[in-house]
Amino acid sequence: MKRYCFGVDVGGTTIKLGLFTLEGGLLEKWEIPTRTGNQSEAVLPDVAAAVLGKMKEKGIEKDQVEGVGFGVPGPVTEEGVIVMNANLGWRNKHAAKELEDLLGLPCKGGNDVRTAGLGELWKGGASGYKNAVFITLGTGVGAAIIVEGKVILGSQGAAGEVGHIKVDGEITEACGCGGIGCMEQFASAPGIVKMAKKLLSESEKPSLLREEEVTAKTVFDAVKAGDGLAMEVAEKFGHYLGYALAATAAILDPEVFIIGGGVSKAGDILIEYIQKYYKKYVWPGCRDKKFVLAKLGNDAGIYGAASYIKK
Amino acid sequence: MKRYCFGVDVGGTTIKLGLFTLEGGLLEKWEIPTRTGNQSEAVLPDVAAAVLGKMKEKGIEKDQVEGVGFGVPGPVTEEGVIVMNANLGWRNKHAAKELEDLLGLPCKGGNDVRTAGLGELWKGGASGYKNAVFITLGTGVGAAIIVEGKVILGSQGAAGEVGHIKVDGEITEACGCGGIGCMEQFASAPGIVKMAKKLLSESEKPSLLREEEVTAKTVFDAVKAGDGLAMEVAEKFGHYLGYALAATAAILDPEVFIIGGGVSKAGDILIEYIQKYYKKYVWPGCRDKKFVLAKLGNDAGIYGAASYIKK
Repeated sequence: MKRYCFGVDVGGTTIKLGLFTLEGGLLEKWEIPTRTGNQSEAVLPDVAAAVLGKMKEKGIEKDQVEGVGFGVPGPVTEEGVIVMNANLGWRNKHAAKELEDLLGLPCKGGNDVRTAGLGELWKGGASGYKNAVFITLGTGVGAAIIVEGKVILGSQGAAGEVGHIKVDGEITEACGCGGIGCMEQFASAPGIVKMAKKLLSESEKPSLLREEEVTAKTVFDAVKAGDGLAMEVAEKFGHYLGYALAATAAILDPEVFIIGGGVSKAGDILIEYIQKYYKKYVWPGCRDKKFVLAKLGNDAGIYGAASYIKK
Repeated sequence: MKRYCFGVDVGGTTIKLGLFTLEGGLLEKWEIPTRTGNQSEAVLPDVAAAVLGKMKEKGIEKDQVEGVGFGVPGPVTEEGVIVMNANLGWRNKHAAKELEDLLGLPCKGGNDVRTAGLGELWKGGASGYKNAVFITLGTGVGAAIIVEGKVILGSQGAAGEVGHIKVDGEITEACGCGGIGCMEQFASAPGIVKMAKKLLSESEKPSLLREEEVTAKTVFDAVKAGDGLAMEVAEKFGHYLGYALAATAAILDPEVFIIGGGVSKAGDILIEYIQKYYKKYVWPGCRDKKFVLAKLGNDAGIYGAASYIKK
């Protein structure tokens, strides 16, 4: 009888793995290093060996395992083909099929941000919702758009590029995408740091941020401590992100926004600043959408990966 | 054997009806007046009488008819319940069920903009696409968001309110929704007229528009004739609409944008102005999306309504 599934989250430096019951109970999680560059061909065999090793360790037979789900960065087709992964040097790699051949088990996968969104939807902050937008605020800003319980891919696997909604034509520095004034230039972790450093250099105001390393975390810690300059940064953050999420709401009418990624560790204070501007800019019919923090943290990816397999 | 279906488009002044083959061939179309106000209870019986009358006229038996689809303004649930229709004074009216009871035939319905979008997807400008955004530029700006061949509703039936994406915080006049700087304030037919009148009043520049009634049509006719002031209006129109559609693309990654509604009668020149700014603001991966004009004109609604019934 099928009782188990595995969720695998392939990151740039580590591969996170989880052994789950089919109902979503996390029985065990562990990590292995990601071999990149010219060793990247070892990644899928490493995953297969880790899964098979865990099965052996636990005395789990193949006919008890429903399958293995995985998430990887970059665009992934519905068939589990990795269109491109710069870090691993993969292009049009049929990862689902290759992993199936290695394991002799059904495998399914998707983009990592979307996979994490599915994890939050299944067992995290968005549990119980069918229409949701999961935003990750990290090195960049990504999103998983969940419609009727499914993550939408878009015609080229590019749905959810909300980080590249333009929010300000006044800056002159280009985003990594080549555009100017992308939301991600302000609401990502590096964006928050840049805004803070700019304000610090432009004024003589005292600030806790003059005495420590400026990170997204120290900025919001300073906000909580009542630091005026940090609060100016938070207002800008809330303005740009709230504006972009208001546009997103007008298009999608979701039930809930789930805020995840490293920046979300700052806590509920983020939501206060986002909602202030979201409510200012949004179509009135969407004013009262819920905003919640992601709950699964670094485990969202393995939960979401396992959810590809669950019944 | 089932061979036919009907498509019904309930508008504010007329109800358009079409008799279709199940493959989408329009065999006949006609109109009846919409009875509004305190006579609005007659609307569904009028529709039923028109459908049954046409069947009798053509010698079509009930067992040859697959069903009747309809579109109406305002939010409609997936079950065909009209949440609210101000013009007809309806609230939570179970139109699909009532029409089924009147006709003894299966009935399904949806919001008129979404229904027209489905019509364009089935037999019009978007035929052959699965991920599309259908924009109507009329008295307001509406949209049907088509994902994987289905029009998405959103959690409260409000998906597609792209007309209320904020595009300019500089104006002080409020939109009908209460917001300030909604895209619809610029890209709708009245929005275009307002922008033109403002420019006419602020300058002494000669313009064809000083000699005739200013409408969306006369503005774009003047653009085609090389009128400088009208071209300034078209630039603003393209800027605001192109910007909002760039945000839409970043979220949805559709294959195609279909431009419909009364303003779309201006023709391909609209697309030139929209694309100029769309390409400026959009995430590079979505730069080469197709833009097409709606093809079915006033018939999009009956085609889309019939498509609810098609196999």
